[in-house]
Amino acid sequence: MSIRIGIAGYGNLGRGIECAVKQNPDMELKAVFTRRDPASVSILTAGVPVYPMEKAAEMENEIDVLILCGGSATDLPVQTPALAAHFNVVDSFDTHAKIPEHFEAVDAAAKAAGKVAVISAGWDPGMFSLNRLYANAILPDGKDYTFWGKGVSQGHSDAIRRIEGVKDARQYTIPVESALEAVRAGKNPELTTREKHTRLCYVVAEEGADLARIENEIKTMPNYFSDYDTTVHFISQEELNRDHAGLPHGGFVIRSGKTGWDKENSHVIEYSLKLDSNPQFTASVIVACARAAARMQQEGQTGCKTMFDIPPAYLSPKSGEELRRTLL
Amino acid sequence: MSIRIGIAGYGNLGRGIECAVKQNPDMELKAVFTRRDPASVSILTAGVPVYPMEKAAEMENEIDVLILCGGSATDLPVQTPALAAHFNVVDSFDTHAKIPEHFEAVDAAAKAAGKVAVISAGWDPGMFSLNRLYANAILPDGKDYTFWGKGVSQGHSDAIRRIEGVKDARQYTIPVESALEAVRAGKNPELTTREKHTRLCYVVAEEGADLARIENEIKTMPNYFSDYDTTVHFISQEELNRDHAGLPHGGFVIRSGKTGWDKENSHVIEYSLKLDSNPQFTASVIVACARAAARMQQEGQTGCKTMFDIPPAYLSPKSGEELRRTLL
Repeated sequence: MSIRIGIAGYGNLGRGIECAVKQNPDMELKAVFTRRDPASVSILTAGVPVYPMEKAAEMENEIDVLILCGGSATDLPVQTPALAAHFNVVDSFDTHAKIPEHFEAVDAAAKAAGKVAVISAGWDPGMFSLNRLYANAILPDGKDYTFWGKGVSQGHSDAIRRIEGVKDARQYTIPVESALEAVRAGKNPELTTREKHTRLCYVVAEEGADLARIENEIKTMPNYFSDYDTTVHFISQEELNRDHAGLPHGGFVIRSGKTGWDKENSHVIEYSLKLDSNPQFTASVIVACARAAARMQQEGQTGCKTMFDIPPAYLSPKSGEELRRTLL
Repeated sequence: MSIRIGIAGYGNLGRGIECAVKQNPDMELKAVFTRRDPASVSILTAGVPVYPMEKAAEMENEIDVLILCGGSATDLPVQTPALAAHFNVVDSFDTHAKIPEHFEAVDAAAKAAGKVAVISAGWDPGMFSLNRLYANAILPDGKDYTFWGKGVSQGHSDAIRRIEGVKDARQYTIPVESALEAVRAGKNPELTTREKHTRLCYVVAEEGADLARIENEIKTMPNYFSDYDTTVHFISQEELNRDHAGLPHGGFVIRSGKTGWDKENSHVIEYSLKLDSNPQFTASVIVACARAAARMQQEGQTGCKTMFDIPPAYLSPKSGEELRRTLL
């Protein structure tokens, strides 16, 4: 019997989930829930209904795993605990500093309801976290590095768009190649924020806007840009739409460490992603976690989990026997 | 209380285990077991006894996890099931084609004894297998590539040493850079054996040996060399000892795949290792698996496991709370 999936929130991530479900024959999309007027939301999968978000709980017996596609700032802290009272759920909560409190809230709700909730699924947090964990467990005496990009940061793009005189913007985070090379060579460099990444901004200004002021406001913006070497290019809306419509991303997790009686040997573990579509890849990880959530709950587990708690085999539709035969 | 470790077999891998145990403060080495005369085996850790292999079972109450460091050809198929009747065990059984039958034999023994046995721990099988599994679960529509090297293949070095007139030899497996680049670029090439790796051999010949015959015998050796572009260099024993004493290895696991409603987006997942010491890195993975084995058995699990079955958090000495706070 296939795993019945619901999607709560139909933006870029929700559409990515819909596409990923289509690629996994053991899954079936049952419904999409939205806070917009359902009549205004047209989805890709024929025959699947779109309902108002409030109706979700009524469908708790028709959905095995509900995937929550809201934002981490205000949606998920409320939605994930609330919906874990009715469903196995998966979210991609990505405010690293608030993961512990989100975990506690979701754990209480899921345990009370006998459900499994997987939080912070995706690639960072998610696959990058897993690779940090594996590499730390294997090489206790070492140093971690995470680089992001080249890719679009939606948070930084939004920050630019809030500047007066800016019509539209797209910001790329780019790892510094020489820093990457030093890390890969096992040199264990101490790297400042500025030495790890640069920021590249494509900005569409309103007619007559003061470009020098906009550029200066971007480059000096605290937290977002002031600690980085930032380049600003002003382009037209047409150019932005034509050349910067995608949401590519990726990055690198590298750990180098020592082994041996006198720490005489060095090792470098590297994991990297090159993604054409950040939301679609995130969705693909989430959907694999939904499979694991359904299976863990069937086996009697309850409560909040992260990818750290999921036996890798549970992410796959293949049996243990087939996995050992084909992938081990 | 620390995890009490025993080592069965004290070659390169056994010594690697000893070094890795030293790096993990939650572990303690209790004994080394050998098939040689124990008096002839001197180990690095002060105060730890060396016993004959037959004595192992007598110590079943003093050791939490016994790590089996024998070879996959003849040792482990016998030792792992036999010792899983007395201990939680971890081995690095690496004959991929025979993993299913090894699993069955070990599973029966471990279940009967209420023990946990982790087989095929290391990097391939092991971390490379895990990365194949994760990448397949995330990108169901894609293609896998595994490259090995640059590194020493002990099996191939041994094969050269069996040729008449050869005193010593060291064989390096080297991935073909252009093939790697094509895979990384998401081109999904179809690659023959010859297109993926080359083989580089350093050979010490006996005095007066027919070098042309040796070179020809190497290059035409079925299974080992005939399907590869192979280069043979004759060098002196001194040069071999000076320049080729280490056991470096490594490699790459890459999966590229498509997502999107019309498969319009491509993604590349890459995992790579650069290892100064193949046996020490393998040992470091095994020791993390020993931690997981002890914990899984404490929680009431029994039977044979692979890294596919181990929740990643169980490999780490840190608590779930600490892992979520620091690595997620």
